[in-house]
Amino acid sequence: MTDHTMKQFDTELNDIRSKVLQLGGLVERQIIQAMEALNHGDLLLCEQVINTDHDVNRMEVDLDEACVHIIARRQPAASDLRMIMTVIKTITDLERIGDEAKKIAKQARALHSNDMAYVPRIELRHAADIAVSMLRQALDAFARADCSVATEVVRRDKEVDAEFKSTMRQLITFMIEDPRTISRALELLFISKSIERIGDHAKNISEYVVYMEMGRDVRHLGLEGLEREIAAKSS
Amino acid sequence: MTDHTMKQFDTELNDIRSKVLQLGGLVERQIIQAMEALNHGDLLLCEQVINTDHDVNRMEVDLDEACVHIIARRQPAASDLRMIMTVIKTITDLERIGDEAKKIAKQARALHSNDMAYVPRIELRHAADIAVSMLRQALDAFARADCSVATEVVRRDKEVDAEFKSTMRQLITFMIEDPRTISRALELLFISKSIERIGDHAKNISEYVVYMEMGRDVRHLGLEGLEREIAAKSS
Repeated sequence: MTDHTMKQFDTELNDIRSKVLQLGGLVERQIIQAMEALNHGDLLLCEQVINTDHDVNRMEVDLDEACVHIIARRQPAASDLRMIMTVIKTITDLERIGDEAKKIAKQARALHSNDMAYVPRIELRHAADIAVSMLRQALDAFARADCSVATEVVRRDKEVDAEFKSTMRQLITFMIEDPRTISRALELLFISKSIERIGDHAKNISEYVVYMEMGRDVRHLGLEGLEREIAAKSS
Repeated sequence: MTDHTMKQFDTELNDIRSKVLQLGGLVERQIIQAMEALNHGDLLLCEQVINTDHDVNRMEVDLDEACVHIIARRQPAASDLRMIMTVIKTITDLERIGDEAKKIAKQARALHSNDMAYVPRIELRHAADIAVSMLRQALDAFARADCSVATEVVRRDKEVDAEFKSTMRQLITFMIEDPRTISRALELLFISKSIERIGDHAKNISEYVVYMEMGRDVRHLGLEGLEREIAAKSS
């Protein structure tokens, strides 16, 4: 490559990188707004989250296309190619996070537009905060190519899982005590499941980041395997 | 490329293609076995499905690696590159189908090892049959690069969604009538959700196949948009 082509190539890679972060920021905002809409019964905000889905989808398609173009024209190798592979995988997870946020907004709309008798008092904010902070860390790990932050995200996945299980137990108790709450409890259960899935996606992204940086696919090693890899690398 | 390199390249592409179909066959079998384990309370079969997850994960990692190698060494363009992009996306969905099958097996194990009072009589076989047949069609569409079969899969996604909604309604009735069934009903609800997700993944794969064949990203066009694209292409 000439200096000029290399410079262009770098610009293109940086452009892709910053668009991934933009998409990440967009779906992060979607989750936060969906939870706000749920907590305050804000139906307009529900619609807004649902409509943002179009932007998320368009950004996903554009980014995929940009990746294909850069592979076809620049024939990247080694760490550049790993970066692009990471982007290709990451945007799928980001788009699915957007889908989960949309689902939360739809459930929130259903919960608040029906005039049902009783709302089980279930606090989902804490779980959502963990999931959002995992996503933020995963994007940060991607932006700074930081494996230790990525590992931290994988570690925290247990927290959202535990939150989900505890929510489920609480909801079962509510349902048994007062069967009139069953329909609403199920809506809340699905919201809780969506939050758990957002954590899973943040974990996936973090595992791609480790692959990008170390060239090792750590997706199915579990937390211990991942920590071993990181320790071996830094020693 | 020389004749020799081109021949090698074709062999490599074919190898990747057949490994995708192998992975697809493996997760298809996982779903079928998980449902069989559920219906017959076969705990050994549950374990078998859960353990197959390792093979699925290994095949996913190997295939991803093969794709990166072929991009780095062969610098594929146009339809070859689209095929590889399709594979990269498809294997993620296949691996997640495997995860859903594993979840079904785990729920089946929980349902049959506990000695709970009452099982709601819910028939999930029909929904599972639809999901399996969608997966089979999606793999077939990939193998034969057949957009009309792929479109058929996208069309059938509504069927699994309808099955899920009907199951949910039935389960709610059971739960209200007899709150002792609530825990079990929730296990069945999650199994039903897994089946619905398998249908979603089969739909995703089919949309990638259309991209591979037509070079058009149809993921977010909806069924009508997809049908329009196919009609425009064939006219």
